[in-house]
Amino acid sequence: MEGLNHHHHPYVPKDLDLPGFVPGFLSQSTILAVYGLSSLLLVSLVWFLSGRFPNLQKIDRLLMCWWLFTGLTHIILEGYFVFSPEFYKEKTAHYLAEVWKEYSKGDSRYVARESGVVVAEGMAAVLEGPASLLAVYAIATKKSYSYILQVAISLGQLYGTAVYFITSYLEGDNFAASAYYYYAYYITANASWVIIPTLIVVRCWRKTCAAFSTQEQRKAKTR
Amino acid sequence: MEGLNHHHHPYVPKDLDLPGFVPGFLSQSTILAVYGLSSLLLVSLVWFLSGRFPNLQKIDRLLMCWWLFTGLTHIILEGYFVFSPEFYKEKTAHYLAEVWKEYSKGDSRYVARESGVVVAEGMAAVLEGPASLLAVYAIATKKSYSYILQVAISLGQLYGTAVYFITSYLEGDNFAASAYYYYAYYITANASWVIIPTLIVVRCWRKTCAAFSTQEQRKAKTR
Repeated sequence: MEGLNHHHHPYVPKDLDLPGFVPGFLSQSTILAVYGLSSLLLVSLVWFLSGRFPNLQKIDRLLMCWWLFTGLTHIILEGYFVFSPEFYKEKTAHYLAEVWKEYSKGDSRYVARESGVVVAEGMAAVLEGPASLLAVYAIATKKSYSYILQVAISLGQLYGTAVYFITSYLEGDNFAASAYYYYAYYITANASWVIIPTLIVVRCWRKTCAAFSTQEQRKAKTR
Repeated sequence: MEGLNHHHHPYVPKDLDLPGFVPGFLSQSTILAVYGLSSLLLVSLVWFLSGRFPNLQKIDRLLMCWWLFTGLTHIILEGYFVFSPEFYKEKTAHYLAEVWKEYSKGDSRYVARESGVVVAEGMAAVLEGPASLLAVYAIATKKSYSYILQVAISLGQLYGTAVYFITSYLEGDNFAASAYYYYAYYITANASWVIIPTLIVVRCWRKTCAAFSTQEQRKAKTR
């Protein structure tokens, strides 16, 4: 009987052992509002500031917004998860701990600290996050490495998302507290990191091929 | 006492349960000789055939050899592992089963079918393998997507190797039957897939930046 009392947490599988677990304090709407509004504020800032740079197209400015948003998400949110293995024991309403206590309802591998999830999040936090901020700078200043950098980060994000989804599938795909959390958190929250990196890879791939074609033509002329 | 008899396999951890395990039939030297000689044969073939293509530099021909070797390794060796979860029960001296029975002495997560390993190998077999063969063709015919394709595959290989090593580290790094197998198989056999993709990324990254610089200069001239 005593054993059953250990498992008063909202996650699935129910028999997941989380000694010292402290339930979240903030509501889902509060957590989402803080993330949504702070992201909106920063993205708006990038949008207006980038308007003052010469010769930046709208698409470049939109991409700068994306790279700032995804970069800070990787570094702050995912970075906190990677380096805070005991976040679920947090006794205060620490915002970042609340994010992961809540998100784990869609994927309990976060509280269970499954190694595939930790690796994918670690790569995002340590490599893709800082590289995303570099991409904001590279686009603004039209660096020659701008496109290849964006392809590299986007492929990393796609590979990470593949690791994330496929390890879950191989392990039985039963880590969500309910169908609602499965679709709202596990599927919907991750969809942006499949769709947007794919679009960016396609765009930058084309631009890169065009640049090599131009170079070839130029070589042919000078022959 | 009966329980102990279940674990007559050469892998670590010793208590890994492998019902139906059949020991390998071929010696280490036989397995390595087949892999080494068939690789040497194919690589030599690519080297000589590529010499008949016009305007291919030695570095291009070397890269074609690498992409054929790594592509076929991904598709045949790793592809077999991914789609043969019961390879360790193989009752004959099936060469591909022998490879993984032997390699598992360096990393028992292969026989244990750890999901991080299966994902990294699956990505290699299904995506990077065929893409590597495409790279052989792209280099031979000087396609404009040649460099970006090589960057994409190499980054995938590096990400996969990172997942492979980091998941092992997070899970205690105790999957080798001995220090010999740890260094000979786990470290040495994987080292090429760290070193060579890194060199390729650096080279193609520089070429891509140069192509964009040329394009910029050309635009500046025509203004």
